[in-house]
Amino acid sequence: MTTPDDVKKAPAKDPWDLPDVSGLVVGVLGGTGDQGRGLAYRLAKAGQKVIIGSRAAERARTAAEELGLGVEGADNAECARRSDVVIVAVPWDGHAKTLESLRADLVGKLVIDCVNPLGFDKQGAYAIKPEEGSAAQQAAALLPESRVTAAFHHLSAVLLSDPEIAEIDTDVMVLGEKRADTDIVQALAGRIPGMRGVFAGRLRNAHQVEALVANLISVNRRYKAHAGLRVTDV
Amino acid sequence: MTTPDDVKKAPAKDPWDLPDVSGLVVGVLGGTGDQGRGLAYRLAKAGQKVIIGSRAAERARTAAEELGLGVEGADNAECARRSDVVIVAVPWDGHAKTLESLRADLVGKLVIDCVNPLGFDKQGAYAIKPEEGSAAQQAAALLPESRVTAAFHHLSAVLLSDPEIAEIDTDVMVLGEKRADTDIVQALAGRIPGMRGVFAGRLRNAHQVEALVANLISVNRRYKAHAGLRVTDV
Repeated sequence: MTTPDDVKKAPAKDPWDLPDVSGLVVGVLGGTGDQGRGLAYRLAKAGQKVIIGSRAAERARTAAEELGLGVEGADNAECARRSDVVIVAVPWDGHAKTLESLRADLVGKLVIDCVNPLGFDKQGAYAIKPEEGSAAQQAAALLPESRVTAAFHHLSAVLLSDPEIAEIDTDVMVLGEKRADTDIVQALAGRIPGMRGVFAGRLRNAHQVEALVANLISVNRRYKAHAGLRVTDV
Repeated sequence: MTTPDDVKKAPAKDPWDLPDVSGLVVGVLGGTGDQGRGLAYRLAKAGQKVIIGSRAAERARTAAEELGLGVEGADNAECARRSDVVIVAVPWDGHAKTLESLRADLVGKLVIDCVNPLGFDKQGAYAIKPEEGSAAQQAAALLPESRVTAAFHHLSAVLLSDPEIAEIDTDVMVLGEKRADTDIVQALAGRIPGMRGVFAGRLRNAHQVEALVANLISVNRRYKAHAGLRVTDV
């Protein structure tokens, strides 16, 4: 059967050999939601300039004021325009519609999709497979002039938002088509103490990374945990 | 957006509170392949009675002799009949056909499917989604009178087979419908030094666990690694 071992050709890449991203402005669409706000908090705390986006500018400004740390709030379109890197942390339900409406504002931007398409029933969570293959591929299809990547899927919003938690003990799987882009996303993840960005393939393999959140929900339920993932031997 | 956090109801489960499985006979269908042989080696080394199965009994016996450690070889049907727990480590191509032919031999058995349906092209590996949802769900559909679980998807055959490697630094995600069954699989995983079994949901969430091997192949290629996964906070 198939195993993860593979022929090695190019020289090994050091997962910490990454560009300096400290000067980039990071926007967070859906930044008033739990996950978005938690990410905004951690990135701002790490010294990144962060702009929270929301459909209602006022709500974004209120959330930004609560976070402090120089975080600003704006409506989604302004958030996208003013940012170099734009994290998409909106609910799956509004994913396509939000991105379509921001297509012009996101031209040329590095987009990081972290949306997990999931359904819930009595047995818990289950994965939804979007027609495009994954939320990330849907974003890439809707934003042909943006640089779409996927990352930050497996983070606990509870841990991200808890100021008593100093380090987030997890690796972040980063997917994308261009190494220059995935390197930037890995570097951003690496700015958050405890976190490390690890390249984990092209967007066509994003679905299983998004869907794995259903499994982490099962883990969390059984073990009363806020599970994260570490990639060993890297 | 959805995060892995979830309401906690039942009391937390200790991931090491598991049954004694040291007396169970473990069969490995496809035990002459890289992954199957590696698993057979590790389980036998941990003290488990192991029977390697293959289509050709002679090939299974040769592989068993090479491994030593009391491992026996047999054709797949005898391997299934004589085992309490049967690991399915056959190539995806032969998965359905092999299981169909062994339906009677596998009645009542605890089956552990570790097959990863993948395709390969110039860009590397990609996930294949079986009609039934996953290889594990295909096994469950074909073996209605067996107790089908899924586990051992993310293991490096290179590390498993290397006698100089003392510990396999990875958690094993275990999926299944019945806690009594998944507990046994977790306990088996836990017998291998360095390894730990972690419950990770029902079979309907097996696809993404199988498919994640495509991502680990990307990780291995970029970092020249034999990547495994650890679940943090458990």
